[in-house]
Amino acid sequence: MTEKNYNVDQLNKIQETINKMDPVDIADKLEILPEKDVAIWIKLLNKDLLADAFTELRAENKARIVNILSEESIKDLVRDLDEDELVDTLQELPANITKKLMDTHIDDNRRKVVNELLGYPQESVGSIMTVNFLSVKETDSPKSALDKIMASKLDAEKLEQIWLTDQSLVLIGFVYIADIIRNQNKSLKELAKSITATVTPYEDQEVVAKLSYRYDLGEVPVVDSENRLIGIVPAEDVIDVVHDELQEDMSNITGISDQSESYLEESSFKIAKTRTTWLIICLLTATMTGFIIHRYESLLASAVALTAYIPMLMDSGGNAGSQASTTVITSLYSGELSVKDFFKVVAKEASIGLITGIILVIINFIRLMILDQAQIRVNLTVSITLILTIIFSKVMGGILPLIADKLDVDPTVMAGPLITTVVDTLVLLIYFEVASLLLGI
Amino acid sequence: MTEKNYNVDQLNKIQETINKMDPVDIADKLEILPEKDVAIWIKLLNKDLLADAFTELRAENKARIVNILSEESIKDLVRDLDEDELVDTLQELPANITKKLMDTHIDDNRRKVVNELLGYPQESVGSIMTVNFLSVKETDSPKSALDKIMASKLDAEKLEQIWLTDQSLVLIGFVYIADIIRNQNKSLKELAKSITATVTPYEDQEVVAKLSYRYDLGEVPVVDSENRLIGIVPAEDVIDVVHDELQEDMSNITGISDQSESYLEESSFKIAKTRTTWLIICLLTATMTGFIIHRYESLLASAVALTAYIPMLMDSGGNAGSQASTTVITSLYSGELSVKDFFKVVAKEASIGLITGIILVIINFIRLMILDQAQIRVNLTVSITLILTIIFSKVMGGILPLIADKLDVDPTVMAGPLITTVVDTLVLLIYFEVASLLLGI
Repeated sequence: MTEKNYNVDQLNKIQETINKMDPVDIADKLEILPEKDVAIWIKLLNKDLLADAFTELRAENKARIVNILSEESIKDLVRDLDEDELVDTLQELPANITKKLMDTHIDDNRRKVVNELLGYPQESVGSIMTVNFLSVKETDSPKSALDKIMASKLDAEKLEQIWLTDQSLVLIGFVYIADIIRNQNKSLKELAKSITATVTPYEDQEVVAKLSYRYDLGEVPVVDSENRLIGIVPAEDVIDVVHDELQEDMSNITGISDQSESYLEESSFKIAKTRTTWLIICLLTATMTGFIIHRYESLLASAVALTAYIPMLMDSGGNAGSQASTTVITSLYSGELSVKDFFKVVAKEASIGLITGIILVIINFIRLMILDQAQIRVNLTVSITLILTIIFSKVMGGILPLIADKLDVDPTVMAGPLITTVVDTLVLLIYFEVASLLLGI
Repeated sequence: MTEKNYNVDQLNKIQETINKMDPVDIADKLEILPEKDVAIWIKLLNKDLLADAFTELRAENKARIVNILSEESIKDLVRDLDEDELVDTLQELPANITKKLMDTHIDDNRRKVVNELLGYPQESVGSIMTVNFLSVKETDSPKSALDKIMASKLDAEKLEQIWLTDQSLVLIGFVYIADIIRNQNKSLKELAKSITATVTPYEDQEVVAKLSYRYDLGEVPVVDSENRLIGIVPAEDVIDVVHDELQEDMSNITGISDQSESYLEESSFKIAKTRTTWLIICLLTATMTGFIIHRYESLLASAVALTAYIPMLMDSGGNAGSQASTTVITSLYSGELSVKDFFKVVAKEASIGLITGIILVIINFIRLMILDQAQIRVNLTVSITLILTIIFSKVMGGILPLIADKLDVDPTVMAGPLITTVVDTLVLLIYFEVASLLLGI
């Protein structure tokens, strides 16, 4: 078969090398290796490592690998996957494979847990938590806790914190394994650290990210409505959530609907699709700006010089607006702001806008005098519009995210192209009205 | 003194309550409590908890608290702070207090470590790592490793991973404490996990964030040039780095030079200062767009209708450009892209731009025909400009971050206001040139 291309020495060498690699790197390689090499790697990899690498693969490659594996190897793989990894896998595989796995390779106990986990919505806490943790009763002795640790089949990295519950399994605290070892004469209760924060499985994963960021938690416990521990989210997984959520925010701000995972490999059509929606919306709302300019066409015809400052005014407004919205979104995220601070934000942004606006107007006034030798009336028109633009854009940029938050829309979605459109429209209106007044047209 | 306002019962109750709080919440309260209550809290808080809360305070409040504390309490506080926390504190306190602390309260051993840590630049790995870790020789027996754990004075959370070195202290691997307990008959070498990645103290903290994100590391080891372990960065601290770095990216994109920590409390002047620089730069570069419009004034005068489409074209270009740059920045961050993919990015964005552009042109053509009943030549001018704008903006948005990365400038700085300016200028040039050709003016 295919293996004939390698002699025993070569295979030994490959085996030694790949079993020293990190699962993430192995997965990266498996994504690009030719079919026959993939088959060899799978044979040569330790089972644990194969399972770890498998969970890192993209959906289509998971299916490909399952198809290569023997029934026996699939059984091993399924057994080596943690429940949460198993659930992720089941959600990614084609329905027929999923069914087969559930029926043949998952025993009744696990099927129950798996089915529960499958029930949590995407991006919920339940969908990212692990159910692999060790809990003991707070009345247990340190000795019996250590016995449970010795008997536990969990990976050692899941045993850093041992969770304490009361008789009815309600979460009370946790102990560090090192503290148990160092203080075997103390009771678990004495060694217990208190719980800073818990989350429930139906909350958005962002909640975990915010709590971990605020309190620097090593693990966030997930509890049910009776406060019984049902899962945990370790800090290393929270890193992914923080990263993905902020990435999503950035995409929203620039109007990308669904950032694809891989840029170079994804087809241009697919990427174009994620970007087109917002561009179309902006195009259509630009009917407003077009309409305004049309209305003031006679004004513009008699003072064409005014046109020259439209781009500058629009850009200044747009930039000023996104600055405000970015700051407010940041503060919303860290919990410093909420919608009840609406008027504080208005006041704050108005005063920031006034300060910034005055500085910009001074610089711009000089620029227009020297470079453009603009008429004083034109210069005044531009100056007044500029300061009103900056103040107005800052205030709009500040309150739009708050309104979005109140409406349960992601504030970043509002912060993006929408602000530009709103600001543009108003800037032009202000500009032409001021011009009509000052230039007397 | 001030304490007279409370009776013993009340004080007991306060003591009980605050000693159950999380240090972060305590710090939040200390920031806003009146002076006399702060003094009471400090007296009533457990020393460990006070030290933990102290590290969470803002600089000015740290100084305030140090001034309230007795010499004895300062000594306790300094002793209870980890070296990295101590260094952060020293950097934040006024020079005279820092000197006093260093001279009076820090012994020679610690002073050496502290001085080393003080030497690492801001936002470097060295500035965020902790030097509190436990390492043992790989040749040690599990029993002797456990003895070292029992004897260790480190907080239990620092003892989750025990690091293994060879005789010359070179980092070789690590063991989980749970694995030592469960396998006391195996050698540490057999229990060892291999090191996926290491960092050096002078690298940017972003490197730690990227590695942790990619490999889901619980702790990232920091080594010197000889590969000897000198510190670690735990995942819960990496969360802060990931958060802060992405936040910084978002601020950069909208042209905020230095996002302040607290929005509502910070003065409007300070916030205005962080936002003004980029607005001024944009204002000045807008001289370009103004200049171009001036040059084509006669063209505009004879076809004022053209002006109506300038905002739409500029916004479409700006949005299309930021979409591309956000995607490329994301892929740079995850390591998928580098500057060597320059031409791949150009090709990719050109084809995405072509697809998106065609869709937008069709929609826009119909819109202009129906809503504006625009002349066919004007419509054609706008359509041709629009598709060229989209393609051009996408390509520029794609390559500017790559160029920035190559030049060791933060790509997000390039992605912000700068793209808008570059795109605006080119859009206008294209527009007027196409108009001159088609309208024959």
